[in-house]
Amino acid sequence: MRASRFLFATLRETPNDAEVISHQLMLRAGMIRKLASGLYTWLPMGVRVLNKVEAIVREEMNRAGSLEVFMPVTQPSSLWEESGRFVQYGPELLRFKDRHNNDFVLGPTHEEVITDLARNELKSYKQLPINFYQIQTKFRDEIRPRFGVMRSREFIMKDAYSFHVDQASLQNTYDIMYDTYCRIFTRLGLDFRPVQADTGSIGGSGSHEFHVLASSGEDDIAFSTQSDYAANVEMAEAVLVGERAAATQELKLVDTPNQKTIADVSTFLQTETKNAVKALLVQGKPDEKGQVPVVALFLRGDHELNEIKAEKHAAIASPLTFATEEQIAALDLVTGFIGPQGLIEKGLIVIVDRAASVLSDFVAGANLADQHATGVNWERDATFTEVYDLRNVVEGDPSPDGQGTIQIKRGIEVGHIFQLGQKYSEALNCKVLGEDGKPLVVTMGCYGIGVTRVIASAIEQNFDDKGIIWPKSIAPFDIAIVPMNAHKSPRTVEAAEALYTELQAAGYDVLLDDRNERPGVKFSDLELTGIPHRIVLGEKGLDAGTFEYKGRNDAESINISKEALLAKLAQ
Amino acid sequence: MRASRFLFATLRETPNDAEVISHQLMLRAGMIRKLASGLYTWLPMGVRVLNKVEAIVREEMNRAGSLEVFMPVTQPSSLWEESGRFVQYGPELLRFKDRHNNDFVLGPTHEEVITDLARNELKSYKQLPINFYQIQTKFRDEIRPRFGVMRSREFIMKDAYSFHVDQASLQNTYDIMYDTYCRIFTRLGLDFRPVQADTGSIGGSGSHEFHVLASSGEDDIAFSTQSDYAANVEMAEAVLVGERAAATQELKLVDTPNQKTIADVSTFLQTETKNAVKALLVQGKPDEKGQVPVVALFLRGDHELNEIKAEKHAAIASPLTFATEEQIAALDLVTGFIGPQGLIEKGLIVIVDRAASVLSDFVAGANLADQHATGVNWERDATFTEVYDLRNVVEGDPSPDGQGTIQIKRGIEVGHIFQLGQKYSEALNCKVLGEDGKPLVVTMGCYGIGVTRVIASAIEQNFDDKGIIWPKSIAPFDIAIVPMNAHKSPRTVEAAEALYTELQAAGYDVLLDDRNERPGVKFSDLELTGIPHRIVLGEKGLDAGTFEYKGRNDAESINISKEALLAKLAQ
Repeated sequence: MRASRFLFATLRETPNDAEVISHQLMLRAGMIRKLASGLYTWLPMGVRVLNKVEAIVREEMNRAGSLEVFMPVTQPSSLWEESGRFVQYGPELLRFKDRHNNDFVLGPTHEEVITDLARNELKSYKQLPINFYQIQTKFRDEIRPRFGVMRSREFIMKDAYSFHVDQASLQNTYDIMYDTYCRIFTRLGLDFRPVQADTGSIGGSGSHEFHVLASSGEDDIAFSTQSDYAANVEMAEAVLVGERAAATQELKLVDTPNQKTIADVSTFLQTETKNAVKALLVQGKPDEKGQVPVVALFLRGDHELNEIKAEKHAAIASPLTFATEEQIAALDLVTGFIGPQGLIEKGLIVIVDRAASVLSDFVAGANLADQHATGVNWERDATFTEVYDLRNVVEGDPSPDGQGTIQIKRGIEVGHIFQLGQKYSEALNCKVLGEDGKPLVVTMGCYGIGVTRVIASAIEQNFDDKGIIWPKSIAPFDIAIVPMNAHKSPRTVEAAEALYTELQAAGYDVLLDDRNERPGVKFSDLELTGIPHRIVLGEKGLDAGTFEYKGRNDAESINISKEALLAKLAQ
Repeated sequence: MRASRFLFATLRETPNDAEVISHQLMLRAGMIRKLASGLYTWLPMGVRVLNKVEAIVREEMNRAGSLEVFMPVTQPSSLWEESGRFVQYGPELLRFKDRHNNDFVLGPTHEEVITDLARNELKSYKQLPINFYQIQTKFRDEIRPRFGVMRSREFIMKDAYSFHVDQASLQNTYDIMYDTYCRIFTRLGLDFRPVQADTGSIGGSGSHEFHVLASSGEDDIAFSTQSDYAANVEMAEAVLVGERAAATQELKLVDTPNQKTIADVSTFLQTETKNAVKALLVQGKPDEKGQVPVVALFLRGDHELNEIKAEKHAAIASPLTFATEEQIAALDLVTGFIGPQGLIEKGLIVIVDRAASVLSDFVAGANLADQHATGVNWERDATFTEVYDLRNVVEGDPSPDGQGTIQIKRGIEVGHIFQLGQKYSEALNCKVLGEDGKPLVVTMGCYGIGVTRVIASAIEQNFDDKGIIWPKSIAPFDIAIVPMNAHKSPRTVEAAEALYTELQAAGYDVLLDDRNERPGVKFSDLELTGIPHRIVLGEKGLDAGTFEYKGRNDAESINISKEALLAKLAQ
């Protein structure tokens, strides 16, 4: 491509309304332009990247045996009523009527459409397993679109859906998709982690998110310093460390007037929060008589309750609901001064986090107004119903797989694989004849990649103060050639043209910067747009038989021979 | 691709609701399935064709220097209000409100969005000419979607838009696009004609449609038997043939009671319709005093009025409006019995079609109830204001370029290139700085290809009673390999696998039909889906060292050596 015939829509200034770096750089590099809130036009510089990402995704999905389909963006609402999502999905689902007053939605996802297709086309277990994918524009009516294409209203997804006779077959395809996603994100040049995700009601190892690690991410990912272990912080197990030491102190009551928070009490008593326990009183599940018990949760003062873990406990109501002031008063307890002493005797269920369960000589509320207890010890001073994993992991915790310790980084979710089970196939009555001749409800998986989001996340992970630093596989151009003083040096132009032709013939995506601009302008544009290799040609180099080469990550340019140059490019 | 892992969704029966052959065959070959009226899911067999068509279109657009972009499907209504099309477009434009109650449309086309982009991004004449394209899903809320993907509500378009400083530059890009379209449709293997189209108010040679010739087409195309000349029938010039012979008969009045039509009169007078003239009285353009003159049009009895041509005449009101009964009565004329005699004298404007102007001794109305005149001759018996091309061409007319005669065939419009001029750039105030430093309104062109429609039209042109006959460049697979008695002959399976691997390595798109089906089922599926080459392997052939080969168009299969086979495929 000749730069003079390309749209170089670069901007020197950072646009005001762009909060995150990828949004700023995609605007500045002339990749996208905003049409309306959450709607972006992809300019030629952006489309080149988009096409490369799509090609990698398509190649790997084909290699994995998934079959490409293409479903309509507009979908009849009736299918969403069948699945129950017409109501559930909320206002992000854009609904409209056509000219005949029929109800439609703009597809944010295609479970209903593909299940409708499957129930019509799949007749026999012999056709399974089968896996369909598409690469397509989706629409989600975000209440507050932001961060450019990271959270836009229109976006491109690769979505895939697989159909199976049983869970074992689903697990097999799921594993293939897991490996395929790893290959895709590796080829895209991203630092990513497959992360165990919450599966809601499905359970098991049924869901992984793929996160690109970047400080601007919206999710906290816990991962091991020494193994592949990674999980959303909400999902990561906090394992038990150490054993409880023997009691060395007597229980003592101390006045702590108005010291209601763990931080206040610890400061007041000149100790650390990790030597204290904090109490949270929540609603239990109703018993047979319909009585709702109160459950007391105890965590170490420096730890945070993980609500998802708590909700999974059989005795705790879900969603998690705190005890009312009335319930607390009826138990003769005082908010801010609750300790574990005597609670079992009052009829409460007492659940203690693993880390809190190995404390000794700790601080707790005294169950009296304006008083705490010090030197509290389990068993001697207070008993509990159960020890349970109730908290969020923190950095330095041991990794649950026994290898290394936990680190926490922020991640951007770019992919999600999910064992759907029979949620949609049951709702839409999608059955095939089994090997025994009887109809069976198929089991489904789904697998998504946010194609446009991948591009933004690649930038969040790869940039410097000059602009984008593209992973080589998705750069808009592989190489830029800049002839110096082109208007005065026909010889330089000729050499640049020859190199341009040669490198294109060798299969590279080459930009010949033949614009009538100063070298400084060209160099900043090429750095801003993140082109991996820059080759400058000038009279001096031609005399010496060298080319001036600079990799996007290099601090300085170097003068090298053609052989050395070709070797650099081939690396 | 192994057929056992592919979705072969072929149907034996022709679906009831499919009227045209392409719709029937796309359903039967398992290429598409209907989701709702005018909305189709493309199955794996269809997507393979779609991807090949898109790749050819993309390659040729890139080669022509057009830059790929990707615009949102949803567009703010405000842009359509700026261009005036929000009202003009009618109910085919799907309008909706987002969750914040803002007005949007689902894009049927993108002139507004690209012009908005251009007015923001293009600053200088130095950036022009520039040409942008995209390949994208469009939505048009057809009142009666039909013919499958031929007239669907969602469809894929390649749409391109070019920007210029002047008409000469537009003409240059227009010519490049004309050539590019010819290359694209040639590579797609289609029998097509570029056809001059009506340009409405733009005029000049500013619009061509590209038609695939097929009997199911909705348009009549006139083209020369001996040259490249082609035009929509409405656009084709009817040239003057022959000279007027001298009068040989006297004018005679004859009673023709109740014989009002040309056919009736000719039968009654035992002559042919081509020896008579028929009259049409229409409204003229108001004169300076606001008076609306009546214009009498005369055509040969066997010819049809071309309203588009008539409307272009300066004296005739547009849209074409017939004279009222009151106007006719006021002129003392009788509908059904109007002749040219004495009309100029009554103050009418008399315009005579070229073919009617060279008649002599002809039949015409007598301008008296129930009477016609025979032996009428121009000048002697009647005069006219002007001779003008007023009629549709018919087969056998000379081609307007002087080479050959006109043939008329039906065509399917698959492409359209159009010189937009300044319609959108003026409405949206899209200006750049000109070479003189002054702002100038840019001149635009637009260029569309109906990608999904191209596929249907390829089938309309290439099928037999067994199914589709794909042009080689867009077949879902190039070659099918069928091992016979695979379950009993490991040797055949081995040979088939080896050939499969070899042909794939040679770059062919190969289908190995390893399904557990009878040969008859496989053969009909392969013929129905139109795969160009079929290779059958069996014990006998392996013994003889031959392969059974059949081209999709061949009547019989032949046994040939491997060298001959490879040569056949490479043809």
